[in-house]
Amino acid sequence: MHSALSTQHSALIYNIGQLATPIDEGRPLVGAAQGRLRLISDAAVAIDQAGRIAAVGDSATLLAQHQVGEKLNAGGRTMLPGWVDAHTHAFYAGDRADEFALRLQGANYLEIMAAGGGIMSTVRATRAASADQLRELTAARLRRMRANGTTTVEVKSGYGLSVAEELRCLRILRDLAADPTLPRIVPTFLGAHAIPGEYAGRADEYVSLVVEQMLPQVAAERLAEYCDVFCDMGAFDVAQTRRIMEAAAALGLKLRLHANEFADIGAAELAAELRCVSADHLLLLDEAQIAALHNAGCVAVVAPGTPYGLGLDHYAPARRMIEAGLPIALASDCNPGTCPCESMPLIISLACTQMRLTPAEAIVATTLNGAYALGRAHEVGSIEVGKRADLVLWDVPSYTHLPYRFGSNLVWKTVMGFEF
Amino acid sequence: MHSALSTQHSALIYNIGQLATPIDEGRPLVGAAQGRLRLISDAAVAIDQAGRIAAVGDSATLLAQHQVGEKLNAGGRTMLPGWVDAHTHAFYAGDRADEFALRLQGANYLEIMAAGGGIMSTVRATRAASADQLRELTAARLRRMRANGTTTVEVKSGYGLSVAEELRCLRILRDLAADPTLPRIVPTFLGAHAIPGEYAGRADEYVSLVVEQMLPQVAAERLAEYCDVFCDMGAFDVAQTRRIMEAAAALGLKLRLHANEFADIGAAELAAELRCVSADHLLLLDEAQIAALHNAGCVAVVAPGTPYGLGLDHYAPARRMIEAGLPIALASDCNPGTCPCESMPLIISLACTQMRLTPAEAIVATTLNGAYALGRAHEVGSIEVGKRADLVLWDVPSYTHLPYRFGSNLVWKTVMGFEF
Repeated sequence: MHSALSTQHSALIYNIGQLATPIDEGRPLVGAAQGRLRLISDAAVAIDQAGRIAAVGDSATLLAQHQVGEKLNAGGRTMLPGWVDAHTHAFYAGDRADEFALRLQGANYLEIMAAGGGIMSTVRATRAASADQLRELTAARLRRMRANGTTTVEVKSGYGLSVAEELRCLRILRDLAADPTLPRIVPTFLGAHAIPGEYAGRADEYVSLVVEQMLPQVAAERLAEYCDVFCDMGAFDVAQTRRIMEAAAALGLKLRLHANEFADIGAAELAAELRCVSADHLLLLDEAQIAALHNAGCVAVVAPGTPYGLGLDHYAPARRMIEAGLPIALASDCNPGTCPCESMPLIISLACTQMRLTPAEAIVATTLNGAYALGRAHEVGSIEVGKRADLVLWDVPSYTHLPYRFGSNLVWKTVMGFEF
Repeated sequence: MHSALSTQHSALIYNIGQLATPIDEGRPLVGAAQGRLRLISDAAVAIDQAGRIAAVGDSATLLAQHQVGEKLNAGGRTMLPGWVDAHTHAFYAGDRADEFALRLQGANYLEIMAAGGGIMSTVRATRAASADQLRELTAARLRRMRANGTTTVEVKSGYGLSVAEELRCLRILRDLAADPTLPRIVPTFLGAHAIPGEYAGRADEYVSLVVEQMLPQVAAERLAEYCDVFCDMGAFDVAQTRRIMEAAAALGLKLRLHANEFADIGAAELAAELRCVSADHLLLLDEAQIAALHNAGCVAVVAPGTPYGLGLDHYAPARRMIEAGLPIALASDCNPGTCPCESMPLIISLACTQMRLTPAEAIVATTLNGAYALGRAHEVGSIEVGKRADLVLWDVPSYTHLPYRFGSNLVWKTVMGFEF
């Protein structure tokens, strides 16, 4: 495979002890295929002048053919595709460390909301922050993600919750997306993340604001590729969510949905009905709902860091999803309330220890299936000719070490195109 | 407190936004006191020429008094004592990543043993490794621990399991203990870690080897400060353990014990009877056993990374221990089988999310109570005048961020004496 050699290689990474990659067959990997990685020993990857993969093959062969350009000796290390993290709220100011501790001592979400905490606490901090502060805080966060091997990341708005603030946040995010030192950013509009205090008791009016004022501007300025809604108890109901999602789709935005995280209010069925690209969280999901998502072609985005951070005793039914043929992507859900986790290797470890994914299933879920969950599989998610050279070298002898050696950052080098 | 100023300061760390330390009152902190940290804002720490803490106080005051020597501006960051990790098996070669994955898919420990895995797999790899290899592998591991804020670490033997190999390992460990770039090492002899294949069916003969040949040499060469035994189903029973521990005590070694991890065979009662400095693991522990350990003055060393790595649904009953006044220390249990975790911040996060410790309780458990569990509280475990300057600066505004921001290494600098 992948021996189509170009004469325009401009860089070569060789002496890769183990190269592990999913094989992209044009759709998310499901069932037994979700656990299948192609392994190449003593591998090399050639990168062309556009920063795309030009060849994948045997180290000695590619080294002999590669006469010009930069060379990087991987020293026998393991190469995987960069992580594609399909669900984050990584754009925010402030923190909720105290709330995190209170919740683990038994305070519930509603008590914390009543005390002025929860999402609105982050909204206040985000609104109060300057553009420079928001840019720096988010860039630092995304750089730490990249240092842990993430090369593509979805980032949602949702801590502005007014027309001006949602647009301000998305414009700053657009600036960040142009920074080549950061992971590639896929922006999502989540104006319907919570009902802001100003609209307490007037949720439908807030939905009108989202539909009539936020969405048209977001679409006109092309500030987001996706629209998402937090469809759950205490947030937006199914009717409100449908109204927002239909308006977004009419404006050309693609859809993804927070579904069945805290309560089952029909969000999973709605995600299926709307044929969302992904349905996310899915902690409470029965077989009929799994089948509905499967039939609708949704990717299930599972974020085990969140139940971990909440100290819950249940996780999304990932094994049942895989058995039913529903493709799983794993995401960090990086957010200031329940899970400020910037490390996809820890997410992989949680997926293996708490949801019983195999290491290979977890790696497919954080690479190729993550790329499908973001509509980016033509570009990223596997180490194959023509895709972007988003490549991570790990200081381990095999991909199986990633869930096993939890807690340490084992990245040796994160490569995006030519930056090595 | 701590305003005793010396004229011999030779270094000052100032502009510490938050200094958080347990206060050492001569015994492990228990009950409500286990959750008590002293917090100082805008703090500074002066270090004398012997690498000990000379003063702890207000930043402006100490800065004015500190005329000579090095200065380090902490930039408003948070300082905590270095972690004291009271239970590790960090001296080994090889890995058991495949076994880790198999076990999460349902393979049990006995099946893995039968297939040649488990502890004996690491014994084979360790015996086959050269002294240089063992030195380098262990040093790299201990350096990663230090990079995560660990400044004192207990390390057990137990992958040699012959007279020659146990002594070889402990001698290499002694060499490592002289390396000032590593955490301080407290060596423990764990010749009774498993019954080696050569003694299959002859456990009592192996115990005789430990008692008659290993222990006298270990004591004569002062290769270990503690003796430990893996007293559990499938390892050593109570009678065998008592025989080893009594011989060790007679030779002047202090005692610690693996107890009640997989089965309750009476190990906790034995630890109490022998007045071990610590009883470790304790996943299965009733109120009478908690009381017995409490009355015997034992520290409970709890290692939540191990049930996490095993994918278990139960952890040590840490809250009940605290309520009963039993002091808790948290340890990594870093080992190649169940938990190769080198990050005490992840252990703290697990303690908070899975066992409901408060952030302060978890930090006392990883600092001062860890020091008591190793008989080192006179030297380390809190930031107080006279103790060693084992200090870690964290890139966070408060200690509460450590369990909250799980997955990232937030250390800014680990200081031991003058190394900054």
